[in-house]
Amino acid sequence: MPVYTCTTAAGTLTPAVKRSLAGEITRVHSEINHVPPGYVNVVFSELPREDVYVGGEPGAPLLITGWARRGHPQRETTRLALAVSAAASRISGVPRDRVLVVIQDSPARSAVEAGHVLPEPGEEASWQGAG
Amino acid sequence: MPVYTCTTAAGTLTPAVKRSLAGEITRVHSEINHVPPGYVNVVFSELPREDVYVGGEPGAPLLITGWARRGHPQRETTRLALAVSAAASRISGVPRDRVLVVIQDSPARSAVEAGHVLPEPGEEASWQGAG
Amino acid sequence: MPVYTCTTAAGTLTPAVKRSLAGEITRVHSEINHVPPGYVNVVFSELPREDVYVGGEPGAPLLITGWARRGHPQRETTRLALAVSAAASRISGVPRDRVLVVIQDSPARSAVEAGHVLPEPGEEASWQGAG
Repeated sequence: MPVYTCTTAAGTLTPAVKRSLAGEITRVHSEINHVPPGYVNVVFSELPREDVYVGGEPGAPLLITGWARRGHPQRETTRLALAVSAAASRISGVPRDRVLVVIQDSPARSAVEAGHVLPEPGEEASWQGAG
Repeated sequence: MPVYTCTTAAGTLTPAVKRSLAGEITRVHSEINHVPPGYVNVVFSELPREDVYVGGEPGAPLLITGWARRGHPQRETTRLALAVSAAASRISGVPRDRVLVVIQDSPARSAVEAGHVLPEPGEEASWQGAG
Repeated sequence: MPVYTCTTAAGTLTPAVKRSLAGEITRVHSEINHVPPGYVNVVFSELPREDVYVGGEPGAPLLITGWARRGHPQRETTRLALAVSAAASRISGVPRDRVLVVIQDSPARSAVEAGHVLPEPGEEASWQGAG
């Protein structure tokens, strides 16, 4: 259900780091938001170095934007953002000063997966898509 | 006004499928959200296969994220997500289990097109940008 | 803290225009949202021309999507979107009819930078990450 997009300047992450980071984001999200791992999408968008700016100058941040269903407790979403941030810095070696994690949301009823409207947080068990 | 981003692993969609899917998303959005077709943007972000993960493993989903103005009835947004999802699977041949559609929103007053602040849903007729 | 993604068809913006636009978005955002320039991220996502559609036909828009912390006054966010739009058209030469700016948000507590949860708008001075 969730989608994480990790945006970097090319060369910031090795293939092995990307795979490891995708796995860890999946694990952390699955645990905190109670979603089966198989529903967690993680993609990497690597841009030419001259297309990434921080403070108006070329930079090399690791920008992770996630989308999840609205309605998870705010405290859990904060915990999720902190956990993803810590994992990203630890696995990638990018200093934490250059790691930004943002979790966005919209109503479960504004999203469809496997042909079915997503369940509200906490109502996953009855979801047809999980059948 | 709206922007749809279709993210896939490279090779998932042919050029003909992309064009056809862009056309159908445009038609469906225009009809349900009452926006002239010429204001509907659809872009495709194709990533290297090794940069797309589902459940922590390389995968080949079709991830469609749309943005629209806040204030459309939720029931209509749900209908929109279902229609885009059905069209995406039908046109692309990607099994519906691998198709995710998410509609995000923000206030019309947080967006500008053609130099003008976007109209609230239902107030399009008086919009200066439509002149 | 904020992230701006500028999406175009390849060839729409020269390297010099991208750099200049990144600088101006940074300046405008910093001034209106009271964020130090060093925290403003701007990235450019250039897609093959055949992957960008407007109204169901290949097109060449300049689509700028920004994310900022929720809680800024709506009037200021509208002013920000107008200023970014004007700067984008002026600097890039893309006619304003083809420039779309969308500002999205989520709670500051749903985002982490430099290992710290982001401060609410107006509470930046006490933020640990700014230390």
